[in-house]
Amino acid sequence: MIITFLTDFGLQDDFVGTCHGVIKLIAPEAEVIDITHGIPPQHVLQGALVLRNTLPYMPAGVHLAVIDPGVGGARRPLVLRDAEGRLYVGPDNGLLLPAVERFGGIEEAHELANPDYALQPVSRTFHGRDLFAPAAAHLTRGVELGELGPPVAAETLARLDIPQPEIGEDQARAAVLYVDRYGNVQLNLDREDMDEVEVSPGARIELECKGERYYAVAARTFADARPGDILLYEDSYRNIAIAINRGSAAEMLSARAGDRVTLRRAL
Amino acid sequence: MIITFLTDFGLQDDFVGTCHGVIKLIAPEAEVIDITHGIPPQHVLQGALVLRNTLPYMPAGVHLAVIDPGVGGARRPLVLRDAEGRLYVGPDNGLLLPAVERFGGIEEAHELANPDYALQPVSRTFHGRDLFAPAAAHLTRGVELGELGPPVAAETLARLDIPQPEIGEDQARAAVLYVDRYGNVQLNLDREDMDEVEVSPGARIELECKGERYYAVAARTFADARPGDILLYEDSYRNIAIAINRGSAAEMLSARAGDRVTLRRAL
Amino acid sequence: MIITFLTDFGLQDDFVGTCHGVIKLIAPEAEVIDITHGIPPQHVLQGALVLRNTLPYMPAGVHLAVIDPGVGGARRPLVLRDAEGRLYVGPDNGLLLPAVERFGGIEEAHELANPDYALQPVSRTFHGRDLFAPAAAHLTRGVELGELGPPVAAETLARLDIPQPEIGEDQARAAVLYVDRYGNVQLNLDREDMDEVEVSPGARIELECKGERYYAVAARTFADARPGDILLYEDSYRNIAIAINRGSAAEMLSARAGDRVTLRRAL
Repeated sequence: MIITFLTDFGLQDDFVGTCHGVIKLIAPEAEVIDITHGIPPQHVLQGALVLRNTLPYMPAGVHLAVIDPGVGGARRPLVLRDAEGRLYVGPDNGLLLPAVERFGGIEEAHELANPDYALQPVSRTFHGRDLFAPAAAHLTRGVELGELGPPVAAETLARLDIPQPEIGEDQARAAVLYVDRYGNVQLNLDREDMDEVEVSPGARIELECKGERYYAVAARTFADARPGDILLYEDSYRNIAIAINRGSAAEMLSARAGDRVTLRRAL
Repeated sequence: MIITFLTDFGLQDDFVGTCHGVIKLIAPEAEVIDITHGIPPQHVLQGALVLRNTLPYMPAGVHLAVIDPGVGGARRPLVLRDAEGRLYVGPDNGLLLPAVERFGGIEEAHELANPDYALQPVSRTFHGRDLFAPAAAHLTRGVELGELGPPVAAETLARLDIPQPEIGEDQARAAVLYVDRYGNVQLNLDREDMDEVEVSPGARIELECKGERYYAVAARTFADARPGDILLYEDSYRNIAIAINRGSAAEMLSARAGDRVTLRRAL
Repeated sequence: MIITFLTDFGLQDDFVGTCHGVIKLIAPEAEVIDITHGIPPQHVLQGALVLRNTLPYMPAGVHLAVIDPGVGGARRPLVLRDAEGRLYVGPDNGLLLPAVERFGGIEEAHELANPDYALQPVSRTFHGRDLFAPAAAHLTRGVELGELGPPVAAETLARLDIPQPEIGEDQARAAVLYVDRYGNVQLNLDREDMDEVEVSPGARIELECKGERYYAVAARTFADARPGDILLYEDSYRNIAIAINRGSAAEMLSARAGDRVTLRRAL
């Protein structure tokens, strides 16, 4: 059975490798797909969005995700089941829910509370190793959710505020969700939002970011713009994104996750 | 069956993990070896050289490589077979050919055109996920090249200019091909080139890089030089490289891929 | 059979991927767990400590570790067996011993000298690929240690100086062992050392690092401190560490591995 694995652990330290070791100790036949461990430290929202975007491309299985600034505190460790039977393991801080909702929402939720399925003694700072990876490994071996701990009411689970755009008559006020390795800047807008402000491929756009203005062109792909041009396109996860053909839009705009961007049709 | 996988995707984002997921969805029994995903963004030449250098150390299988600045444009997506039966999947921009030629050259080339073997709808910016990884996965399951799309004439494939050194009577003008994590600077020279300019282990060399001159010694390995000495040696891929014992030659010389270096025997 | 793999190779280059390829060429059924490849270049001590800390979380198997500033020189390539039957492959520079000692010490030690179990020709600079990975792969197939080369006397093996703290009546002089991605600063102290200087959870501590003084609080986990507070806690490998709740202690203290830190109870 497949375990997908997403964290903010990075690959510099041993955190990811140690969790792989623990999984193999408990479930030698489990197979792990590392979605990414490059989520910026403690950015629960970015992790939640990446998990939601990528799970449709992953085999159904146990989806282990650990971005856990509240480790050792009062936040509950969880296992969830969605309407399609996928399982999720991670902290109760909103990280898992956007993905779960994409697959029909929560069918079952339990707190990880049974010490038999944790590594003892459980440390206060590395629940990935001691609590979450062991639970995921045991689930691949057929352990029932109810075995892992008591049920939790779905409505008590922590939820994230996903920033919403303001769509006006002739402009859209958006937020930067994500900046990737190529410097592409993903916005919280989709094609329907663009239709509302009447932007279609070929249109010229005025962008405002951090008090500076830029001109961009709405395009279908990088190859539709000249090198150096700023373009607006629908990215592979169906969000509207800003890019520069053979350059870095994030660098040009000094844009980071959370920044605000305003788009207007240029006349 | 093995899929080797080389890209410029980096490991910060989910691009690599998502392709792993897609491969496992289509071919659960396929095994992936990640050669590297650290090729600098869009450096097709560096990727081509690393692929050529490393494939002799990889089990024969499907060799998936994606560095694809022309994604969404007119460049063709390809599958190739070499004279030894290895398969290659990637864009038609020269990335695959240096490796293919190391194994006897192209025996068969097809364009990936059959929508049945792609993820629908194919996005315009992430063909790694939607086109190349699916094709590689289907190939491990025994799908024939001809099933994936029409044949392509080998002589129409895009080729890279691999920089050639100028070997004079008493000097060699070389180019930096690659700089690694340790700051070792790989040149487009091999031992035969060194013999021509009469450099053998123990010889003193004058290096010129970006207008600055340095003295180096030709050595067989790091341990033959004192800490801090610049040395010239034959690296593990049989290129001549510049290193500093327990230091970074790249930093000392401010050298990056593409830079020119002149070598002369010092008297 | 499992091979665990730890190096300072990084993931930018192909070094790790190439070793994976070589392992799969020799032992297609071997499974590799990458503990980490992010040890800073040539930091044998950090690698040795991470290996020692993580092996208890790894299935027993062949433990391959390569941090090898002396490659190509006189240092011997080794295979070791510990009292519990785990096997270790790596250079004779102290890297392996702290882990081996955690599992009962050396039972058997051999030099890798049999050319039949190496990749020929062995390069002078990449023994990971040509010597160590092949030996590890052959071991998973049941090759005996004695086949790989002649026995080596355990007392002739290179050993590392692991920095020891100075525990006084009312202060502890410690060294920084490791700084992780989150900026947590691991010291060469454990809970017993803290007991000796009479520090228990809730106590206020004065830290001195690089001539600057800071106030910290002894805590059980991050959640026990306010955001921005410096805290001293027992980390998940049972070392005492310095952290800042939702911040980077390493940045605040400009602390790096090897730096000295003095701790005193604040009155």
